Amino acid sequence: MTSPSALPVITVFERSPDEGQGLARDMRVRWALEEVGQPYVVRPVSCAAMKQPAYRALQPFGQIPTFTDGDLTLFESGAIVLHIARRHEGLLAGDDCARARAIAWLFAARNTIEPPIIEREIVERGEQNEPWFTRHLAALDGRIRLRLRDLSARLGTADWLDSTFSAGDLMTVDVLRRLGGSGLLEAYPRLVAYVARAEARPAFQRAFDAQRAFFNTTLTR
Amino acid sequence: MTSPSALPVITVFERSPDEGQGLARDMRVRWALEEVGQPYVVRPVSCAAMKQPAYRALQPFGQIPTFTDGDLTLFESGAIVLHIARRHEGLLAGDDCARARAIAWLFAARNTIEPPIIEREIVERGEQNEPWFTRHLAALDGRIRLRLRDLSARLGTADWLDSTFSAGDLMTVDVLRRLGGSGLLEAYPRLVAYVARAEARPAFQRAFDAQRAFFNTTLTR
Repeated sequence: MTSPSALPVITVFERSPDEGQGLARDMRVRWALEEVGQPYVVRPVSCAAMKQPAYRALQPFGQIPTFTDGDLTLFESGAIVLHIARRHEGLLAGDDCARARAIAWLFAARNTIEPPIIEREIVERGEQNEPWFTRHLAALDGRIRLRLRDLSARLGTADWLDSTFSAGDLMTVDVLRRLGGSGLLEAYPRLVAYVARAEARPAFQRAFDAQRAFFNTTLTR
Repeated sequence: MTSPSALPVITVFERSPDEGQGLARDMRVRWALEEVGQPYVVRPVSCAAMKQPAYRALQPFGQIPTFTDGDLTLFESGAIVLHIARRHEGLLAGDDCARARAIAWLFAARNTIEPPIIEREIVERGEQNEPWFTRHLAALDGRIRLRLRDLSARLGTADWLDSTFSAGDLMTVDVLRRLGGSGLLEAYPRLVAYVARAEARPAFQRAFDAQRAFFNTTLTR
């Protein structure tokens, strides 16, 4: 039995801007920890506190999540998920080649698939009243569709991107979930099924419920 | 002595769009291979070939570079640099914690610093004649400056981001180099010096010269 103080600590938004939809970047870390069966502790951080030097010492860019385990503090959700996957069984199966390929998908999710999706969110949030809004959104949708088309083609009829479920699938699904409500994913039924398959995993459900419960608790404070 | 056929193979643009400035994403892989002293072979790919199924089997999104070493083929420059850093000495020094932190910087470079820089390139290339061009560029410059400010604050007066030069520095510098000509980096003298320090490394020079020579060769074909 591990004492609570020995558990890894992740930082999360004190009040999640997505209202508990599981789109904040702590979700992927919670999910990874659930997949490998590692309990963890959550430390909420306010937006004001994120800008302070004490937090910047943990996270130079003032973002969540961070991950602290004993003497080690990490930032960047991709690096944290990779660290968890390397330290525990369950997210990087197979030989060294299979592990390297799963890590390639983890990078692809964050560097190739996610960027136009994040840009779309920034444009939706900040440019609604700009004269270029409609055209800019359409251009980004075009870029997102290219990624989804290629991803769907690669997935084909398989359940996961590289034989067994991996940290790469976890990150890819977490990124695709951000498209909820945009209508973009629905043109790719294989990707819709892929996301649903991942969301049905008990570890996903536990992580989702935990962040939702945390949001509801902060609401009633 | 390794036979040429046993060397790792990376794919590069047949005709680099940056005209040999070393901004294509094979540069970071060449640099990593030079840092660890691993010879490699280059396979040029045309833009037309990148769209074909044979290449998509290696790289689902039709990008360069890919990395093939024996039975293993990887894509995503971040994953490739990490793979090289894990397989060889020289890019991940220290204990497990130091290695994990270097990997966090590798992710930060690609996921937190690079995205607004790439968006800026897309806007510069595609929106020059749009009425909103100036304002859109200014908004992206603001986002880039926030990243540079935070990065500069974290670097402080140190030579490298986490004591010794690592794969994280390599990727960060490679990303910052994309700002050349924008005038944005110059407001952060510590970052200018950081990039210059990295570019002075013999391994960087060898990698840079190799991609430049390759570009010049293709020019005269």
